[in-house]
Amino acid sequence: MPHDSQMGRVQLVGAGPGAADLLTVRALRAIESAQALLYDALVGEEILALAPAACLKMQTGKRAGRASMKQDTINRLMLRLARRGLRVVRLKGGDPSIFGRVGEEAAFLHAQGVETEVVPGVTAACAAAAQFGFPLTHRGEARRVTFATATTRDGALTESGWAAAGDPETTLALYMGRDQLAAAADRLIAHGRAPTTPALAIENAGRAEARVLSGTLESLAGTLAGERFDGPVVLLIGEVAARSAAYAPQDVPLAAEAM
Amino acid sequence: MPHDSQMGRVQLVGAGPGAADLLTVRALRAIESAQALLYDALVGEEILALAPAACLKMQTGKRAGRASMKQDTINRLMLRLARRGLRVVRLKGGDPSIFGRVGEEAAFLHAQGVETEVVPGVTAACAAAAQFGFPLTHRGEARRVTFATATTRDGALTESGWAAAGDPETTLALYMGRDQLAAAADRLIAHGRAPTTPALAIENAGRAEARVLSGTLESLAGTLAGERFDGPVVLLIGEVAARSAAYAPQDVPLAAEAM
Repeated sequence: MPHDSQMGRVQLVGAGPGAADLLTVRALRAIESAQALLYDALVGEEILALAPAACLKMQTGKRAGRASMKQDTINRLMLRLARRGLRVVRLKGGDPSIFGRVGEEAAFLHAQGVETEVVPGVTAACAAAAQFGFPLTHRGEARRVTFATATTRDGALTESGWAAAGDPETTLALYMGRDQLAAAADRLIAHGRAPTTPALAIENAGRAEARVLSGTLESLAGTLAGERFDGPVVLLIGEVAARSAAYAPQDVPLAAEAM
Repeated sequence: MPHDSQMGRVQLVGAGPGAADLLTVRALRAIESAQALLYDALVGEEILALAPAACLKMQTGKRAGRASMKQDTINRLMLRLARRGLRVVRLKGGDPSIFGRVGEEAAFLHAQGVETEVVPGVTAACAAAAQFGFPLTHRGEARRVTFATATTRDGALTESGWAAAGDPETTLALYMGRDQLAAAADRLIAHGRAPTTPALAIENAGRAEARVLSGTLESLAGTLAGERFDGPVVLLIGEVAARSAAYAPQDVPLAAEAM
């Protein structure tokens, strides 16, 4: 469908990991000139405050007990706002191309003849690596990095793909994996990943209030269970995790420490 | 080693994919206040021009026939500049944690007692996805994305890790893979990836002058061989590549087109 000159446009924008100064300059400009802003629950006040006072702001994700909008509702809302001729910004935590459903939203808008632009962002694993001092790849140690989720749509553990993740030269960044860490670790170990593989759980990566827990593939789930990590958590599994200053394997028996 | 208050500091900064407005705000501020800037060959004039006129600028990567500095030379140079009390910015294309050797540089500086900070950036695959309209992950189609290189230090094809990359639900982003695409495709097909898997080669991803070639895992190397892609190339392999408006499989026989 050809673009209608009376129609507004939609920018699908990566908000990065949460700190306002980890927005790209292009994302910042989009927010500063937005007339309507639809934002996910992961996007915080610091970033929302950058939009003009007159900008219409709508949250689409669940927070503080309110339910999420369905994808179809979000799509139709973007379309309605664009048809009013507004500059619409759809703001997503991290990078929109990685676990951001940008494919679904862009395809819908394109089919409706709405001009769209995607603005990339810094994804949580890159922010976590920068903040806690470990690389995602490292010569001779981590040739590859895989971004994955441990859970499917309904919250269950993903069934496939674990064999690939068992490769010792792959750093694994698991998004949205907090509640499935124990089960994910079991699968990885069953597929040959060493139980002693260094692992980190990072809450609110890239934000000032970020916290990190460290351990091994075998121990981290137990450590995490004892903490209240309510913010978004990214899990980092691989030899590179040991390069973090925050790394302290927590499954060393006391007897070994005393030697 | 404790930090010396007379010592400068080094920021290891991701410059993103090349467009100045795809810098993060934090990276922009670091460049604007740098007293010494050491930059890789992938960082272009548009970004270098943001540094103060008085800033000492040094290229560390090879371009226009000049040889690259050795890693050890770069390390010692950063240390010398920091010891002069300067605010040093080490600028790397993309995100420093992904194929950026940030682990080696940060470890060296830390051991020498130099305060360091890592600033994350937008990596080339995310920029390519945003620019050419495909996601890196997509529900029911691409559950994971792996960032890998096809070549080792000496330019040879990587020996390990191909089995994992054969998984049909993994999007594969191959950095620095242009010259090894044909060999990499053969390995992927040998490990079970369908020869008809959609594939893109993107030169200068994220820049205004970016170009894209599309095809299949089987056909793309042949297409690429007929083009002069001299800039940095990222290869995107997976079902999501077919969602790009730029996608046009080029191994369809002419007879089929005539039907």
